[in-house]
Amino acid sequence: MTAKIRLYVDHPLGDGQTVPLDRDQAHYLFGVMRLSEGAPVALFNGRDGEWLAEVSDAGKRGGVLSCVRQTRPLQMPPDLWLLFAPIKKARTDFIVEKAAEMGAARIMPVQTEFTNSERIRQDRLQAHAVEAAEQCGGTYVPEVTDLQRLDRVLADWPEGRQLMFCDEAEVGRSSVLPDGLSKGAWAILIGPEGGFSEAERARLRALPFAHVVSLGPRILRADTAAVAAMTVWQQALGDWTA
Amino acid sequence: MTAKIRLYVDHPLGDGQTVPLDRDQAHYLFGVMRLSEGAPVALFNGRDGEWLAEVSDAGKRGGVLSCVRQTRPLQMPPDLWLLFAPIKKARTDFIVEKAAEMGAARIMPVQTEFTNSERIRQDRLQAHAVEAAEQCGGTYVPEVTDLQRLDRVLADWPEGRQLMFCDEAEVGRSSVLPDGLSKGAWAILIGPEGGFSEAERARLRALPFAHVVSLGPRILRADTAAVAAMTVWQQALGDWTA
Repeated sequence: MTAKIRLYVDHPLGDGQTVPLDRDQAHYLFGVMRLSEGAPVALFNGRDGEWLAEVSDAGKRGGVLSCVRQTRPLQMPPDLWLLFAPIKKARTDFIVEKAAEMGAARIMPVQTEFTNSERIRQDRLQAHAVEAAEQCGGTYVPEVTDLQRLDRVLADWPEGRQLMFCDEAEVGRSSVLPDGLSKGAWAILIGPEGGFSEAERARLRALPFAHVVSLGPRILRADTAAVAAMTVWQQALGDWTA
Repeated sequence: MTAKIRLYVDHPLGDGQTVPLDRDQAHYLFGVMRLSEGAPVALFNGRDGEWLAEVSDAGKRGGVLSCVRQTRPLQMPPDLWLLFAPIKKARTDFIVEKAAEMGAARIMPVQTEFTNSERIRQDRLQAHAVEAAEQCGGTYVPEVTDLQRLDRVLADWPEGRQLMFCDEAEVGRSSVLPDGLSKGAWAILIGPEGGFSEAERARLRALPFAHVVSLGPRILRADTAAVAAMTVWQQALGDWTA
């Protein structure tokens, strides 16, 4: 019995555990996907790994799934935050989706001097991160934080966390992360479409925990830069190498 | 005088060169963007670098730009082909856009056993590559080829070109390209959403010019995999390092 449907639930998963479904979930599983009692569903909640469950009660307004066995353990991503300045709606959605796929532990929209958006829909972005995890076989869902001002995030920076700062003005210089950096708590910062202001750049470059990186000789859009930067980081300091 | 508008034209550029505009270009520059005579425009044609030009004649159905001086030389990307299996329309567009930004020289949609699309709109995809180059300051536009069958592409494989084969079935293994590979002519192959068939995988793994690479421990969508694979390649074998 293998499940073709993967569903995120905000409920404990374990041996003998039953999971009640809300109206939307019941509509999706029984109305749209036409599952009946006994049908398999893969479940994860971001904490207990992936579980094979089966439908034990199917109703129009609700239902119950019962956990059968754990099929994969929880796979935590490395301790990587992705900080980015929100851009147009579709590309912001895309950055959140890609950050979840690429293994960011936390996704933080930040407001810079040249950021256009004054606000974001945190709940919608969080739903995108859940959907990306459902689609891509993830067992962990990164938290999407509310929009914060970059200067305040930097002022409250946690001790010991390093920052990979992708500076557009570095386009064309050597791009790789310097050797000898230590693994552990990190963050990546991607700028807005208009780049950082001179004051922001000066401040970022002076931070003792910041490492300036260039992403090759071409100008990249913010969403491309996010995937490229996470690739560079995962290869050098994350879980892409044994 | 700096130009805020960047335009691709299929016309020679050089000292004293004039460039006639067609009706669509004239409508965009004079109707939509409201440029008048003497206004600056940045031009590139994929061959002669970037040129500063100015409007010397503005009409409703056409017009003329005159080259003033070259502002950037032609920057050729490395000799990298990106082969990918077309997926849903929006994500296929996205792969073409990203390949142009990331510096692919040629973009080749290929039909695999599990590819859904029977056909693509080559002209529309080529227009996406032009737009990506316009937006991202590129002076080169990669050619988008028509859809070809993967088995035929492999049967006609050019001598001396190496292939980085991103195999989904390798998820979780060590991901970096092996050391000691030579630069030069390369291609990257990204699979369709359903992966490659067993027969395709066996054939690909047996090719003497193919190198199997894993892109980390998480399953990536095809568009994410394309950006991540080009990042890996550009860092190791392309123009991201001096």
